[in-house]
Amino acid sequence: MDITTYVDNIQKTVDTTLDGYLQPKADIPKILIEAMRYSVFAADKRFRSILSIASCQTIGGKIEEILPVACAVELINTSFFIFDDLPSIENNDYRKGKLSNHKVFGEDIAIAAGNCLLAYAFELVINDYDKENFKSKIALRLLQEISKATGITGMVSGQVVEMTSRDKEMDKYVLQYIHNHRTSALIVASVKAGAIVAEATVNELETLIDYAKNIAFAVQMIEDYLDADGDKNKLSKAAEGDIQMRKKTYYSVYGREKASKMAHEKIFLAKSYLNSLKTPDLLFQLADFIITYRIE
Amino acid sequence: MDITTYVDNIQKTVDTTLDGYLQPKADIPKILIEAMRYSVFAADKRFRSILSIASCQTIGGKIEEILPVACAVELINTSFFIFDDLPSIENNDYRKGKLSNHKVFGEDIAIAAGNCLLAYAFELVINDYDKENFKSKIALRLLQEISKATGITGMVSGQVVEMTSRDKEMDKYVLQYIHNHRTSALIVASVKAGAIVAEATVNELETLIDYAKNIAFAVQMIEDYLDADGDKNKLSKAAEGDIQMRKKTYYSVYGREKASKMAHEKIFLAKSYLNSLKTPDLLFQLADFIITYRIE
Repeated sequence: MDITTYVDNIQKTVDTTLDGYLQPKADIPKILIEAMRYSVFAADKRFRSILSIASCQTIGGKIEEILPVACAVELINTSFFIFDDLPSIENNDYRKGKLSNHKVFGEDIAIAAGNCLLAYAFELVINDYDKENFKSKIALRLLQEISKATGITGMVSGQVVEMTSRDKEMDKYVLQYIHNHRTSALIVASVKAGAIVAEATVNELETLIDYAKNIAFAVQMIEDYLDADGDKNKLSKAAEGDIQMRKKTYYSVYGREKASKMAHEKIFLAKSYLNSLKTPDLLFQLADFIITYRIE
Repeated sequence: MDITTYVDNIQKTVDTTLDGYLQPKADIPKILIEAMRYSVFAADKRFRSILSIASCQTIGGKIEEILPVACAVELINTSFFIFDDLPSIENNDYRKGKLSNHKVFGEDIAIAAGNCLLAYAFELVINDYDKENFKSKIALRLLQEISKATGITGMVSGQVVEMTSRDKEMDKYVLQYIHNHRTSALIVASVKAGAIVAEATVNELETLIDYAKNIAFAVQMIEDYLDADGDKNKLSKAAEGDIQMRKKTYYSVYGREKASKMAHEKIFLAKSYLNSLKTPDLLFQLADFIITYRIE
């Protein structure tokens, strides 16, 4: 199977699973499900869940074992987009060419939907792994990875530094902090989770973390680059927004050419770590896919 | 030990533990910790955590075993208060006589703090129970209880129905839904978690759920009653807010006298369930304490 077909198949599997998790139910407010679905199914390449699943499969695990975590990661990612777009944060009217959540459902519902996606991400992992035949200890480790990446030591802290650094001078270290927390943490956690569920050795886990950190860097730079260059109907509104809000991006700090070069270097570096794995092929191809197809 | 001393001691233990969880750290934005601490340590009687701990002790468990969950529940509760107070939701400038979180830290930081408290609640339970000597299966059950009470089947849904029913006619069933989801779910989960950690029998668990549901009803009615009667410097701003926003409360639907009578009846009923327990004394006294001292 070529990598494009693989990616297509995984995207479909993840979307179908997410669709199952987000079905309307009699005792849940209809608008809450609608608001969650609206942002979860806005154009997204499922980059984080693909990496998580590919990592699991590379170590010999099955897709069913990691699928709930992969979906949880997508819900968490969506939750942060909803919050980021709010008027008091980045004030984006559009995200990936669609009206942002609060523009469609109102700020109160958007906040509830963001909140709910975060809580539901944990809930579905907890529920899906609470089975007799699954090792509870592994389930707790998976939860630990995604919770560390999300909260006080992860995405929220990255978001807060982003908020508080907007009107200050550009600073590489601040940019690095924001990237590590806001973007990289969840990508690394996704890859780690895939490895943990497949019971990777310590060496395999270390290899995959190195791979993930470099991939995350490349993804962030590509996203910044696309955002800055982007047509707001096709991509996000961040291009315009970033300049207005003086948001720190790799693009704004390093410039387009250097950011693009760095992304290619990081992808090269990510691949170089894979040599120690028995079956590195999938992750190798995925790295090339990212730089070529500009996923996410 | 009399019940007032017991409650005092538990409040102090919970506050000390929360203080430990919320210490500043070099790599976490200072303002994020400050914003979380501000609302977590705003006047609160720690009602939910006291019930959780008392439930655990009644079944023969130790306070250390339930303390992380008890603290997590307080963080979740605080998170919802921060969100509720936001301009786009209830627009409260004050909460329990203090400026609301967004009035002090700004809306963006308040949203991040609310978000972070929710994620951190899960994280600290996951971390604290990820120990060799603790049963992972029990940890997952605890997480299941608090996640169910928080998200799509719990508090968020209650919050959304509250948002969407504001400008509609009063309706007992809507009020009941809001109460069950927004308030009762977390109180019942707190009590259940205490019982689960102490490895309660099925009968004990059922008894405690019945107790908790009635206690939750009473607490909600007392809160509504206090809010509606309240001096906004001493209590919450909800008194004024509720009328402006036409928020559904037991007070507004049933009136003061009937709401108070119902609260007393529920406390009576809660106590009646306790007879089947070996050592019902603590929970019995706690029920009386609530109605007398109007804990929240």
